[in-house]
Amino acid sequence: MAVFSRQEIERRLETFRSRLGDSQVGIAFSFFNSYYLSGAPIIPWGRPTIAVLPKDSLPAYIVPAFERERAEEHSPIRDIRTYADAEGPNAQCAIRLVAEFLKERNLRRVAVEADGVSASMLEMLKAALPESRTSDISPVLEEMRLIQSGEEIALCRAATEIADVGVETFIAEARVGRPEVTLTGLATSAMAEHAARRFPEMETTFNCYCQQGMRSFTCHAPSSGQGLRAGELVELVVEAFAWHYQASVERAVLVGEPSREQRAAYEATLQAHDAALRAVRPGARFSDMDQAARDALKAAGYDRIDVGTGLSRGLVHEWGGRLDRGNLRVYNHNLLAPNMVITIEPWALVPGVGAPRRCDMVLVTPDGHELLSKARGGMIQI
Amino acid sequence: MAVFSRQEIERRLETFRSRLGDSQVGIAFSFFNSYYLSGAPIIPWGRPTIAVLPKDSLPAYIVPAFERERAEEHSPIRDIRTYADAEGPNAQCAIRLVAEFLKERNLRRVAVEADGVSASMLEMLKAALPESRTSDISPVLEEMRLIQSGEEIALCRAATEIADVGVETFIAEARVGRPEVTLTGLATSAMAEHAARRFPEMETTFNCYCQQGMRSFTCHAPSSGQGLRAGELVELVVEAFAWHYQASVERAVLVGEPSREQRAAYEATLQAHDAALRAVRPGARFSDMDQAARDALKAAGYDRIDVGTGLSRGLVHEWGGRLDRGNLRVYNHNLLAPNMVITIEPWALVPGVGAPRRCDMVLVTPDGHELLSKARGGMIQI
Repeated sequence: MAVFSRQEIERRLETFRSRLGDSQVGIAFSFFNSYYLSGAPIIPWGRPTIAVLPKDSLPAYIVPAFERERAEEHSPIRDIRTYADAEGPNAQCAIRLVAEFLKERNLRRVAVEADGVSASMLEMLKAALPESRTSDISPVLEEMRLIQSGEEIALCRAATEIADVGVETFIAEARVGRPEVTLTGLATSAMAEHAARRFPEMETTFNCYCQQGMRSFTCHAPSSGQGLRAGELVELVVEAFAWHYQASVERAVLVGEPSREQRAAYEATLQAHDAALRAVRPGARFSDMDQAARDALKAAGYDRIDVGTGLSRGLVHEWGGRLDRGNLRVYNHNLLAPNMVITIEPWALVPGVGAPRRCDMVLVTPDGHELLSKARGGMIQI
Repeated sequence: MAVFSRQEIERRLETFRSRLGDSQVGIAFSFFNSYYLSGAPIIPWGRPTIAVLPKDSLPAYIVPAFERERAEEHSPIRDIRTYADAEGPNAQCAIRLVAEFLKERNLRRVAVEADGVSASMLEMLKAALPESRTSDISPVLEEMRLIQSGEEIALCRAATEIADVGVETFIAEARVGRPEVTLTGLATSAMAEHAARRFPEMETTFNCYCQQGMRSFTCHAPSSGQGLRAGELVELVVEAFAWHYQASVERAVLVGEPSREQRAAYEATLQAHDAALRAVRPGARFSDMDQAARDALKAAGYDRIDVGTGLSRGLVHEWGGRLDRGNLRVYNHNLLAPNMVITIEPWALVPGVGAPRRCDMVLVTPDGHELLSKARGGMIQI
């Protein structure tokens, strides 16, 4: 069964076409945007998937040959064009198919996703189409993706429910001496079990990792084999994906009785989270949440705040898909609107303590917001 | 403790410098190549890490502000330059730092990793440096990475050992009715436990997923919540990463007594695997292994072979890092050399049966090869 309904994908294609301006065709190269526009999630492994969408004629979807069935299953696009590994380097083969399509249709004003194509692939395309003119369509795709449909929000909800299970499992299993990777492994298994039971037809994947003490400064570092140490502050990151729509839920966990410094940093984190969350409503600026969180952290004496307070979630992961206009940052005065899905996750680096964070999935509603994460909040101690 | 020794990274930098030709500076933008050249693995999450390596003066490493400590821990590069989220969109901020560095040093002949930078980021850099000339340094990085050092091979060995545990766990736990995600979750937990015990100081991560029957045509699809069904052929994919060096070990698992068609397809897969493996030795061509595997599959009557027989492994994952010159494909006549690490994984799509695969990690040695994967081979039945 397809991830998205035919109507949903057709609506996306229609919107995209209507925003092409004077370009005759728009081309999405990244996993994220070719999936978004086609409906078919195809993990690249070095092999491009490219959605080619003319303004006034039928679209094509260019995929590796062995992904034809998956493309046909999930995408309403019927003109599937494929390349096989034996034909030559994948990028060259895929670009050749794009160029052939554009020549067939005589499309010369070409809007490309410049944020999602490598410089060398775009060079290849330009070399194959010396008479074409290219422009950048990335901002249109970004704007479209910021506001999610009901079907997308359902995936975000499912992913959040799964991530919550990971958080609760980690907390329930955590004790002094148990290795970080063991605990995050258990949390991953629990998420898998839950996903199997609740969402048996969905493709789901999971990331779960933690860092203790000062290692939490490097917040994207995987778990290590070290056991939990008494007196440490542990930062737990749980990410679950439902058809590649990502939810992230994160908690700080105190191992044993906290020091005064740990307690203070943890309390400031929760206050900043609360301040940012209260600012979430349609018409608020993305910068408002970041400012509110920063003010709270600074008022508590924490001024090393290197990152923004959150980001647009859903079709994103650590290797790509992030939307600049969906970042909660002081310079981003873009406005919140209903059906955006963001995380709230203020974060200060506290020397000698670590970097506690509470991250929750939040849906912007017509009236304000809905906290999608249901995992326990407050100060968590084991 | 740093992932790599100082000598190892200095050797890489020296080699890279010596291959810059008449360029005055080389710039690596991707996670893979900036990690490779700097020694510091920093997961992007939308924030570029950029290694800038002048031919005749000291290098710089551009990272997000909160990653400064990680960069300093792992990289011998001492000129770490950082940008914070509050300053503006990350790509713009990072490119501004690159441009400033190049202007400081008056470096105008600039070799960029065109395969690993988005078209829009390279545009930004060119706009900031209108008097510079850029060329593509990607092929040099690709060639360097194909032959791995002792320290890299040690990571590949560790990752393979972990992946083998995942394979054996899955097979031991597999039975009719158990959901795919449950089994791959258990395998993931077992890998985590093993990694914690054997490699407590390493950062390790894991992917594990499987598909049954015809769903194995879409070989990159995550596990579903469906239970194992009697009479199905299950394709199991296990990937383990040690400091982001990837091992992949894959097996087909028969659930109950196989049909004649399943048995024939499985046997052909094993024969193709064996034929390709026997061809691995220094001086052989990458195409030789692909041809040997294809010949074996075709001789058995399977002719839908859409993909090559394997690829260069190590610093690679499903979202990037793949090396065209390290692909086992009929058109790639690049020669094998000692200390390359590849996978052998012939693969035919068999209508009505599925797509069984056996994938192993293989090290090219001076005399031939060493099979790094120790997980059970042969026809696996539960």
